[in-house]
Amino acid sequence: MFDIFRPVDNSTSVQFISRRRILTSPGEHIINTTPKFLRKGELTRAAILDVALDLASRDGLEGLTIGLLADKMNMSKSGVFAHFGSREDLQLEVLKLYHRRFEEEVFFPSMKETRGLARLKAMYARWIKRVSVEIASGCIYISGAVEYDDRPGPIREELVAMVRAWQSALLRCVQQAIECGDLKAGTDAQQMVYEMYGLILGLHHDARFLRMPGSVERARAGFERLIMNYQSAPQESA
Amino acid sequence: MFDIFRPVDNSTSVQFISRRRILTSPGEHIINTTPKFLRKGELTRAAILDVALDLASRDGLEGLTIGLLADKMNMSKSGVFAHFGSREDLQLEVLKLYHRRFEEEVFFPSMKETRGLARLKAMYARWIKRVSVEIASGCIYISGAVEYDDRPGPIREELVAMVRAWQSALLRCVQQAIECGDLKAGTDAQQMVYEMYGLILGLHHDARFLRMPGSVERARAGFERLIMNYQSAPQESA
Repeated sequence: MFDIFRPVDNSTSVQFISRRRILTSPGEHIINTTPKFLRKGELTRAAILDVALDLASRDGLEGLTIGLLADKMNMSKSGVFAHFGSREDLQLEVLKLYHRRFEEEVFFPSMKETRGLARLKAMYARWIKRVSVEIASGCIYISGAVEYDDRPGPIREELVAMVRAWQSALLRCVQQAIECGDLKAGTDAQQMVYEMYGLILGLHHDARFLRMPGSVERARAGFERLIMNYQSAPQESA
Repeated sequence: MFDIFRPVDNSTSVQFISRRRILTSPGEHIINTTPKFLRKGELTRAAILDVALDLASRDGLEGLTIGLLADKMNMSKSGVFAHFGSREDLQLEVLKLYHRRFEEEVFFPSMKETRGLARLKAMYARWIKRVSVEIASGCIYISGAVEYDDRPGPIREELVAMVRAWQSALLRCVQQAIECGDLKAGTDAQQMVYEMYGLILGLHHDARFLRMPGSVERARAGFERLIMNYQSAPQESA
């Protein structure tokens, strides 16, 4: 059962690993990699991407068009094209921006927690928080999974690599919690990640599609039961 | 927490209740409601709907167009229009066909099982089986939830009513399992339905989007753990 979650190829740009190793020490702050002074062209590009991400969250990545974006920005279509060579390039850049924000909101701050259950709990709590905020707009990882489940090409590949990288990060975290004795020795780490993911998909589904209140509480309760099932008893020697 | 899963209004056509009560007696077969002899027009309409359902499963309900359908059927667009007044009518009919098939494959046969845990297990097993078959094509309930999460109108309303009706059917089944003592008295039935739904969403996500083998086994293992958590011990008096 352990041959499925193949680690993502190291050459990809979407690994959830501590590239900024400094962040793994507790108490450190996130390094802001944005240079203080951007040239005008870079500022415009960043502003376009920001609006494009909003549009893609609402209408899906496939709903994103240069025309719509130009309208929203009060720019000409050729003005937008000057910053992104093609619609596909734009879609890929939007995806990368989404990924960076996910990393910065969910992954990096959680890495400051102690390795093991504390870090896993932090990851899940921040993930829930992010999805809750996204109820109004939509999560690109989740809606993209349906949009691109049957649509081959570079966007699907990038999206799959990102979601796999996030699942791998969760898996490593569960494995560390087993290694340090926070979770029982026999815990099936991949099963646990599968169930955590399912709880989040349920939250997105029930809250965004069915508009059901209380979904966040259910996602939390499900995780607590999961942990309870696999947590080591304080005196357990296994 | 129990005010959320409001039962679907009885006036809707999408209730998962035993309208065909005869099916609730064990051993009975599904009644084929299709009359033996259909007029030519009805046969053509049924054939169009069949192809439309395939297209909608693959490309989503929004990807379904009269033009594409006419092409596939070797018919003129006006020929297709003669059977369905508008694209939206066609989409709604496709949705209803999908719902009938879901009922006939998942719901009705499970109702033949003894009320309680046996019936719940049958529902889940048939649901998993259906979603597994749909990995190649896509489940309209699940992909529709993303397609219509933010797109108001009659299709969204119908889809929400259908998914809510299926969740209500599962909820009733869990409640009966509690009443008859198969599941512990304190079981939170809505939480259980939430988690069952999440496991199925995870299966669709991992198998269809990530193309991961072993997802069916994970969905089953998750359900077994869920049941184990809430199943009454044989001698339990609570």
